[in-house]
Amino acid sequence: MEAAVFDNLPKKVYIREVGPRDGLQIEPEFVPTEVKAEFIRKLAATGVPHIEITSFVHPKWIPALADGKEIGGMFAEMNGTHTSALVPNMRGLEGAAEAGLKEVSVFMSASESHNKANINRAISESLKMFSELIPAIKKEGMGVIAAISVVCGCPFEGEVPPEKVAEIAGELVSYGADYIMLGDTIGVGTPIQVKRLLEKVMPLHDPQRIGLHLHDTQATALSNVLAGLEMGIACFDGAVGGLGGCPYAPGASGNLPTENLVYLLHGMGIETGIDLDALLEVADWCQRMVGHSLSSNGLRAYLGRKAAKKNAAEKNATGAHG
Amino acid sequence: MEAAVFDNLPKKVYIREVGPRDGLQIEPEFVPTEVKAEFIRKLAATGVPHIEITSFVHPKWIPALADGKEIGGMFAEMNGTHTSALVPNMRGLEGAAEAGLKEVSVFMSASESHNKANINRAISESLKMFSELIPAIKKEGMGVIAAISVVCGCPFEGEVPPEKVAEIAGELVSYGADYIMLGDTIGVGTPIQVKRLLEKVMPLHDPQRIGLHLHDTQATALSNVLAGLEMGIACFDGAVGGLGGCPYAPGASGNLPTENLVYLLHGMGIETGIDLDALLEVADWCQRMVGHSLSSNGLRAYLGRKAAKKNAAEKNATGAHG
Repeated sequence: MEAAVFDNLPKKVYIREVGPRDGLQIEPEFVPTEVKAEFIRKLAATGVPHIEITSFVHPKWIPALADGKEIGGMFAEMNGTHTSALVPNMRGLEGAAEAGLKEVSVFMSASESHNKANINRAISESLKMFSELIPAIKKEGMGVIAAISVVCGCPFEGEVPPEKVAEIAGELVSYGADYIMLGDTIGVGTPIQVKRLLEKVMPLHDPQRIGLHLHDTQATALSNVLAGLEMGIACFDGAVGGLGGCPYAPGASGNLPTENLVYLLHGMGIETGIDLDALLEVADWCQRMVGHSLSSNGLRAYLGRKAAKKNAAEKNATGAHG
Repeated sequence: MEAAVFDNLPKKVYIREVGPRDGLQIEPEFVPTEVKAEFIRKLAATGVPHIEITSFVHPKWIPALADGKEIGGMFAEMNGTHTSALVPNMRGLEGAAEAGLKEVSVFMSASESHNKANINRAISESLKMFSELIPAIKKEGMGVIAAISVVCGCPFEGEVPPEKVAEIAGELVSYGADYIMLGDTIGVGTPIQVKRLLEKVMPLHDPQRIGLHLHDTQATALSNVLAGLEMGIACFDGAVGGLGGCPYAPGASGNLPTENLVYLLHGMGIETGIDLDALLEVADWCQRMVGHSLSSNGLRAYLGRKAAKKNAAEKNATGAHG
C-alpha cells in the first residue's frame, strides 16, 4: 500500500509565473509600464524562481503588451529570479536579444485549426520557422522554452491525439529547445489525458525539462498537476490570482492560479521556494491592478479568513470597551 | 508504464448531491418550499442517483431548512433516485421516520473543538449518542450514512490525525453505519492527506461504502477526488454550482461543484449516470434560486461558451441580412 501514498513524487518543483505575460495579454485595459514593473518586482519578492515578463509580439496583435521592449530591458536580469519573454519570430528575437534577455519562449499549437486561428500558419509552416528560429536563439546564447498549445483539446477540433503532440515536441527538441511546455490552453484536460500525453512525450526529452501549462476552465488543473507529479513532472506554469482567461468562453476561469498550485505542493511536502502568504497578497493586489476580481479559490479563501479575523478582532475590541 | 495510466480506477461512481441540504443550509434568504421542491425535481431529472434533500434539525439552528418535514414528506420516495435527510438526534429520527425516509445521515466531527463548536458535545458524548441513535435508525429499517467532519483539518486545531478519524469511523461502523462519508469540511486537504486517511479507514469497512465529501476552498477538491479514485473510492458528494460555503472564511468557495466532479469523471471514462449539460442548466438555475452568482468554474465556462455561441449566431444573422 505504501507506494500508493506518493513516495516517488518530486521533492522540489520549478514554478514559472506567467501572469505578467499570459495573464495580462487579454486584459482590455492597458496596465501602465511602471505598474507592470511593480507587479514583476512584487512577484520576484515572493521567491518564485521564474517569471515570464512580457512578449515581443507586434503591438497590433497584443496591445496590452505593447511595452515589451521597456519591460524586457528592465527585467532581462533579476537577482535570484529567472526571467523570460515570449517571441513569435525572428523580429521578436531581435527585440529580446537587444533587451538582453537570457531565455525566451516560442509557441505553436498541436492542432491545425488552432495554429491557423492563433498564428495564421499551418503546423508544417510553424515547424519550418522554428527549425530556423530555435537555432538562431541558441546562437544568441539564450535558452529556449518551446510551448505547445491545446495539447489536451482544441476549441475547433476537439480532443488532440497525444501522438500529434509528441511528434511536434520531438521536432522542437531536435531543433534545440531546452524546455518543452505542454499547454492545456483551454483547460479541458483530465488526468488520464495528461498521463497518456506524458507517456508519449517523456521518452523524447529529459523529463526534468518537460513542464505543464494548465488552465482551470473546468477546475481540473490541480488534478492534472497531480497526474503530472505522479509521472515525475517537476515544472509547472501558474498565473497569480488566475489571471488570464479563455477566449472561447468569456468569463471562464483562466490560468491555474499560482497560489493554488503552491498550496497543493506545500501540502504534499514539495518545495517551491515561494512564500505563499506573500503570493496571496500579490494576488489581492492584482485585483486592484486589473480593476476586477479574480477567480482564484485560494485568493477568495484568504480574503475571507482575513475578513473573519478582522471582524473577530473588532468584536473583541468592542467587547473590551463595552 | 501502463499501470501509471489508471487502469485500476472504478468504472462507475455513486454521486450524492447535497446541494438541497449542505448547500442551502447557509443561504441567508429562505428558499420557499415549492422552489426547493422544484430544485430537487430538477436534480433528479439529471440522473443523479442520490439527493440529500433536507435536514431534521431544529429550525432554531438551521432556519433555512425549517421546512424539513414538508420536503421530507414530498421526497421520501422518488422513482429512480435515492433520497436521504440529515438527522442530528432521536427527535430528528422521529421526524424522518414519520416522513417515510428510507435513509438518513448522521454527523460528528473528528476534532474535539469543531465537534464542540458545531454540535456542543465532546466526541465521546457524540459517540455515546450514536451508539444508541444508529441502532434505532436501523430498527426503523432505514439505512445510515455516517458523516465525519473536518477529517483533513480543523479551523481550531489544524491538521487532524488520520488515526483519530479512523478511530471514530471504526466506532460508527460497529454501531451499524452503512456508509462512512469522510468530510473535508473546510477544504484544506491535499491528495497526500486523503490517501493517508484512506489507508487508515479503508481496512475498517467495505471500501465500496466509504465516500469522500470534499470542499473546494483551496481548489484541491478534484485532486483529492483523483487520490480517492486511485485508492478505489467510488462514492463522492457534490453540490451543484458549488452551493454552500465555509463559515470560517466568508466568500470562500463551498462544496465541490457536482458538475466539476462529473466533468472529471466522464473525462476519465468513469460513469455517473448524470447528464452533464442538464446538470449545468440546473447550476445556472440555482444562481437565480439563491439570488447570487455561484463560484463553480465549470458553470462559468458553460455560460461563457453559451454566450460566445449566441454572439456568433447573432453576428451571422446580422451578416445574412446586412
